Amino acid sequence: MSESGLLERLIEALRVLPGVGHKSAQRMALHLLERQRERGRHLAAMMAEALDKIGNCQQCRNLTEHAVCSICRSAARDATSICVVESPADLSALEVATGYRGRYFVLHGRLSPMDGLGPQELGLNLLAERLAAPGLQEVIIATNPTVEGEATAHYLTQMARKHDLKVSRLAHGVPLGGELEYIDRGTLAHAFGQRVRA
Amino acid sequence: MSESGLLERLIEALRVLPGVGHKSAQRMALHLLERQRERGRHLAAMMAEALDKIGNCQQCRNLTEHAVCSICRSAARDATSICVVESPADLSALEVATGYRGRYFVLHGRLSPMDGLGPQELGLNLLAERLAAPGLQEVIIATNPTVEGEATAHYLTQMARKHDLKVSRLAHGVPLGGELEYIDRGTLAHAFGQRVRA
Repeated sequence: MSESGLLERLIEALRVLPGVGHKSAQRMALHLLERQRERGRHLAAMMAEALDKIGNCQQCRNLTEHAVCSICRSAARDATSICVVESPADLSALEVATGYRGRYFVLHGRLSPMDGLGPQELGLNLLAERLAAPGLQEVIIATNPTVEGEATAHYLTQMARKHDLKVSRLAHGVPLGGELEYIDRGTLAHAFGQRVRA
Repeated sequence: MSESGLLERLIEALRVLPGVGHKSAQRMALHLLERQRERGRHLAAMMAEALDKIGNCQQCRNLTEHAVCSICRSAARDATSICVVESPADLSALEVATGYRGRYFVLHGRLSPMDGLGPQELGLNLLAERLAAPGLQEVIIATNPTVEGEATAHYLTQMARKHDLKVSRLAHGVPLGGELEYIDRGTLAHAFGQRVRA
């Protein structure tokens, strides 16, 4: 296929997808061209439309093609609680795993001055407005348990403490189905120290 | 992200790609939306253009956006030799691995009556024309060593024998770097029977 300029350019363009190297990109391009032209055209159209129309929700910054996302619009969701997450993928994981019925706030990152990510970039002025709004009672901080995630959680806790709110964070401990033998020492020490009544 | 109809539809559309399930599709969609909008738009455009413009070469049936592909057009390629392959991916593998400087013929499949693939579907009338053309001296049959690939090779050999041509097939044997212990019995028996002078 070194002969097809257009095919080579498609293969190169496919490498923007995460985890896709030259070999997988070639397999994808040939698969679409040889077997799935119609669905391939549909994918190209969906991709162009999504990249064009999907932006951030004005209230929670989650990805949506509307001004305000469906969770923020929904009357069924509890407006007295906000859960703060780093990314839309984290929000999705919580939606699938938990029965949480409150609302969210998506940072699109974590505090990381080295990468130029400060309070401004994470939309913390918008979050501050929501924390000050009447009716809010609870803030759940669900950043990742990394160094930067922890620093961000600390910063958010300080912000939330200025208001009369219940502030909580995800529990650390032994993952379900994990074996003690293989769990890192930090997690194990934490789980031991924070042991709960049986 | 259950909240975004458009995002969900993009994730669903991405599953047309080979080896991509729901989880990878979600990761791809979020990666494009969060970090690679520009390159994502480029990918969508390239995909639409390639699916629109790439067809089969009139002479060898390889994928190309031109009427005749660059290998068939090239005066540097030896027109006295044709190598018959099942797919563009096989052609590409041979181009990368071997120093072959002749031309190709792409079947886009193998004889498989159960799947409705007969001589017609594999373009064997076109191949017959090329075999009859003056100047051709050699045919290399490079189908895959599967049951259907072998049957196809047998059929192609019969076709080529009608003309005064040198007909050859890829050698079977022990793969380089393989260990005898782990090679299937059929291959090992073949390699032993066809052993060559040291």
